[in-house]
Amino acid sequence: MTLFNVLDILGIISFAISGSLVAMRKKLDPFGVFIIAFATSVGGGTLRDVLIGAQPVFWMKNTDIIFIIMGSYFFAVFFRRKLKYLNKSLFLFDTIGLGLYTIMGTEIGLNAGFHPVVVISIATMSASFGGVIRDILCNEVPVIFRKEIYATACVFGAMIYLLLHNLGFNETIVYVATSSVVITIRIIAVVFHLSLPTFYTKR
Amino acid sequence: MTLFNVLDILGIISFAISGSLVAMRKKLDPFGVFIIAFATSVGGGTLRDVLIGAQPVFWMKNTDIIFIIMGSYFFAVFFRRKLKYLNKSLFLFDTIGLGLYTIMGTEIGLNAGFHPVVVISIATMSASFGGVIRDILCNEVPVIFRKEIYATACVFGAMIYLLLHNLGFNETIVYVATSSVVITIRIIAVVFHLSLPTFYTKR
Amino acid sequence: MTLFNVLDILGIISFAISGSLVAMRKKLDPFGVFIIAFATSVGGGTLRDVLIGAQPVFWMKNTDIIFIIMGSYFFAVFFRRKLKYLNKSLFLFDTIGLGLYTIMGTEIGLNAGFHPVVVISIATMSASFGGVIRDILCNEVPVIFRKEIYATACVFGAMIYLLLHNLGFNETIVYVATSSVVITIRIIAVVFHLSLPTFYTKR
Repeated sequence: MTLFNVLDILGIISFAISGSLVAMRKKLDPFGVFIIAFATSVGGGTLRDVLIGAQPVFWMKNTDIIFIIMGSYFFAVFFRRKLKYLNKSLFLFDTIGLGLYTIMGTEIGLNAGFHPVVVISIATMSASFGGVIRDILCNEVPVIFRKEIYATACVFGAMIYLLLHNLGFNETIVYVATSSVVITIRIIAVVFHLSLPTFYTKR
Repeated sequence: MTLFNVLDILGIISFAISGSLVAMRKKLDPFGVFIIAFATSVGGGTLRDVLIGAQPVFWMKNTDIIFIIMGSYFFAVFFRRKLKYLNKSLFLFDTIGLGLYTIMGTEIGLNAGFHPVVVISIATMSASFGGVIRDILCNEVPVIFRKEIYATACVFGAMIYLLLHNLGFNETIVYVATSSVVITIRIIAVVFHLSLPTFYTKR
Repeated sequence: MTLFNVLDILGIISFAISGSLVAMRKKLDPFGVFIIAFATSVGGGTLRDVLIGAQPVFWMKNTDIIFIIMGSYFFAVFFRRKLKYLNKSLFLFDTIGLGLYTIMGTEIGLNAGFHPVVVISIATMSASFGGVIRDILCNEVPVIFRKEIYATACVFGAMIYLLLHNLGFNETIVYVATSSVVITIRIIAVVFHLSLPTFYTKR
């Protein structure tokens, strides 16, 4: 089991829990909560696999993923009272998932031999699409369009990955740096309510 | 022409009519009604083909399907006054489609050699995704998230299929049992307003 | 560089500008505007490539496209005050994109050897899906369901393409005729508020 596998699994767990939390806040029934957990968790990677042509998509080839999602779902359901401060837990798991999926998306795009700009696009879509699907299905404003910087954090994370990778740093350093960049940008953005500058004149 | 082909065509017809009915209830123009009929009818199977990598998708390889959808569309349009009790007709056709697509999804997943859990996921998505697209395009709450049991019926149907198939029963029995299970669960759920138990404390 | 390449690039530019304009009208942040520009521009072609199985999708193989979209985005942002009559500019670029993408969709479907009915479906989806995604992400009623004839124009355009192609006319004539048909139908429809006849009795 490589470091990559471990991060992969942690990303799946984080997004599955974040999906379950949003769905329970919306008071969906047990099956609905599971569907949202599943879609949030595999949505970004499924889009990535379909666009690059790596079918059957990853979770059909590695069934462990489905059971990991089930486990995360039951964890979120049973500990929903402990996860009382839902908004904070949700933000935490969503942000960790975002960082880990940025790593995986970059890695897969790089291995497939794409141009750096395409690799960054793939990484950003892999990382942010699960949360977008979750929010569309739950009828919330997609995270990507909310005030605070979101997908932009993935773009910077993927750039750092490519930079360090080209400078010859080893895997562990690249992974730690990438996820730290994504998670830090996202936390700073939310804590200080940072958003991108706008084009529009304020009145 | 095998039993499988016959069921396939009946499923396409059922979902095309159900799509036309929802779209006419929304008073879309003739082309809009056709688009919804088309999306409802082929949506689930298209998602299935894209995820397992069986492209070009089925309706591009077998053009009869497009003409069958056109026929169903004209049927729904011309008999819209006879289908007066739209809600009941809609429920009927949607439920039949659900049962038949569960069979097809399971069969295709099984032939592709996937793990049983993946086969059940594929069957459930094939059967329920057409209705979900229909409802999103028509701006209704997706069937899958409405009160009564919906996708859960497909999960049970696909399980029964796998069970009987592994016990060596012949195709006809497996098909009849699967569609009966899906359709019966769905009818009972709607008639008795059955929904899954919820996690949330009632007040 | 062939005529086909030139039209392809013009189509990408038109839809990227139309996407930027809608997103700026919705006051999205700079990154949000870029995402919408990107999705509008490549959405239809991406759906087409995924459904026919031509992955990795076109913009992953030809990175110029990403830079062309970036350029169009900056153009739309810098000249947004000149494009003051946003509604008219938007309609113009959307309509040009519609005509050009109908040509490309028909060409690609034809080269892949599909049945004419499938070719027309592919052309219509390629041309209209970018605008549909744009409107769904921006929370507007999808163009395809608005009053005036929209996707129907693509259906007629693709039919004219196939007709003239089969009659042996050369590429340039086929291209000019197809885009003229689509653009003319769309302009007439909007100017005269033409919509398809409806099934429903007026009261």
